[in-house]
Amino acid sequence: MIDKLIEKIKSTNAPIVVGLDPMMKFVPEFIKQDAFRELGETLEGAAGAIWQYNKGIIDAVHDLIPAVKPQIAMYEQFGIPGIIAFKKTVDYCKAKGLVVIGDVKRGDIGSTSEAYAVAHLGKVQVGKKTYSAFDEDFATVNPYLGSDGVNPFLKVCQEEKKGIFVLVKTSNPSSGELQDKLVDGKPVYELVGEQVATWGAECMGSSGYSYVGAVVGATYPEQGKILRKVMPKSFILVPGYGAQGGKGADLVHFFNEDGLGAIVNSSRGIIAAYQQERYAHFGEQGYADAAREAVIAMREDIAAALNSR
Amino acid sequence: MIDKLIEKIKSTNAPIVVGLDPMMKFVPEFIKQDAFRELGETLEGAAGAIWQYNKGIIDAVHDLIPAVKPQIAMYEQFGIPGIIAFKKTVDYCKAKGLVVIGDVKRGDIGSTSEAYAVAHLGKVQVGKKTYSAFDEDFATVNPYLGSDGVNPFLKVCQEEKKGIFVLVKTSNPSSGELQDKLVDGKPVYELVGEQVATWGAECMGSSGYSYVGAVVGATYPEQGKILRKVMPKSFILVPGYGAQGGKGADLVHFFNEDGLGAIVNSSRGIIAAYQQERYAHFGEQGYADAAREAVIAMREDIAAALNSR
Repeated sequence: MIDKLIEKIKSTNAPIVVGLDPMMKFVPEFIKQDAFRELGETLEGAAGAIWQYNKGIIDAVHDLIPAVKPQIAMYEQFGIPGIIAFKKTVDYCKAKGLVVIGDVKRGDIGSTSEAYAVAHLGKVQVGKKTYSAFDEDFATVNPYLGSDGVNPFLKVCQEEKKGIFVLVKTSNPSSGELQDKLVDGKPVYELVGEQVATWGAECMGSSGYSYVGAVVGATYPEQGKILRKVMPKSFILVPGYGAQGGKGADLVHFFNEDGLGAIVNSSRGIIAAYQQERYAHFGEQGYADAAREAVIAMREDIAAALNSR
Repeated sequence: MIDKLIEKIKSTNAPIVVGLDPMMKFVPEFIKQDAFRELGETLEGAAGAIWQYNKGIIDAVHDLIPAVKPQIAMYEQFGIPGIIAFKKTVDYCKAKGLVVIGDVKRGDIGSTSEAYAVAHLGKVQVGKKTYSAFDEDFATVNPYLGSDGVNPFLKVCQEEKKGIFVLVKTSNPSSGELQDKLVDGKPVYELVGEQVATWGAECMGSSGYSYVGAVVGATYPEQGKILRKVMPKSFILVPGYGAQGGKGADLVHFFNEDGLGAIVNSSRGIIAAYQQERYAHFGEQGYADAAREAVIAMREDIAAALNSR
């Protein structure tokens, strides 16, 4: 799947992933009203609204981008109907040929981590049959529990030709409370980055990149530069561009000399672009077209930054 | 909710939580066959089987214990039908008066962590109405992202009178890869334990205990002894008893002098007791009665250990 991701990044010339994190305050009023009219002001109504909202965005941007990253928390808060909308979103994106990164940040131990890996990337056995539960292409994984938490994901990834992105240095202000602490003079994020490189060495795609990647926030470009060297064969999923303050120029450190090695996420900067002054002329009805314009602007911003290095 | 948990621990005289982690290999054949006959060898069939299995156990043990801990991964692997079985289990346990600890190990940042907190402990806004999605009483939380990941849970806990258990020192063999690393001479788990004490100071129940607890594995009694002192007002959720190798005598360090401060989880040791030689005479049909006997034995084991200190 890392090979497919790379192929699609090359063909779209856009190392971009659109974060499908449909907060209700992003969803245009007309979509909410339609959904509430049909399904009531219920969990089903909310789930119906976020699904319609997502569908509009996917239809508008799918040809421009290699991948999407639905954030499951935004669906989970609407209970079972929300999870159904998550699954519909995953399936629809895959049908459109997009690589789907499930931003689930799961992590547990042994058989439990295996159950999460099976849930999101693998197949579960029921009697003599097998089924895929959520069937994303990649999942994000939390490393706090060590190898016992990650190895079951590697096993499933090897079987299913899928991949993971391990949290290494997250984009948020307090990420340093634990991740920057020095262990023998080396920050925790670097130790975890070394583990990612080790785990990844056993999981190489034919593209020369591993299907064990890392999450490193755009808001920490200096750390990105270090981690790029620590994990030369791992793709870096870079959140924090746009709304969280990361800029195009900050991103160059996350890429390798071959122009690959990173994929940059933007969520509200794309999906709620119509709420920005710059794209306000699209109006609510044009939210999906605004998202398309924002993707194009982001692609140009990254290309300009990579060209000027 | 921490006050209710303590009250129930006192009334049952059992600082025990039963882990409802229904792996298919634990589910008796007759239950699986019934469910498959009705619903097919499908995700629905699997979910039907684990729900019937859970219900039997809950009916058999609910009067003996204060709390249960369903592990959501074991349900998530069966997709939407699995998640429905999780929700039914939560609701059924609450109707029986049990405290429900959702073992979800969620953790993200800002609005995303808030969405997880809302999903599992809070209420979500839909138009002018509010709904609870999963509505557990406690949730387990991963601290790798720092305060940005935990604070949204604290806010929801304060509003809803609920609680969390933060992963501090997990029970698995590789937990030390990150958690034991020394920072200025102090292991990471101790730093996280100090954070738990700080977060918990703002979240006190009237019982004198905080509703911000910690997860510390029974397999690490020496670390438990240290952490007990670092977080004197936090309840410790102790996994790893039984199947993972923790013994009654190891547990005493996790409790305070008042006999409180810890609650010990057992999953397969209880729910799959009928598969142990000791309880084999119950047979598959008697799996729930075997679970009841195993709870009683666990209660006596812990009481004996606490009495002999």
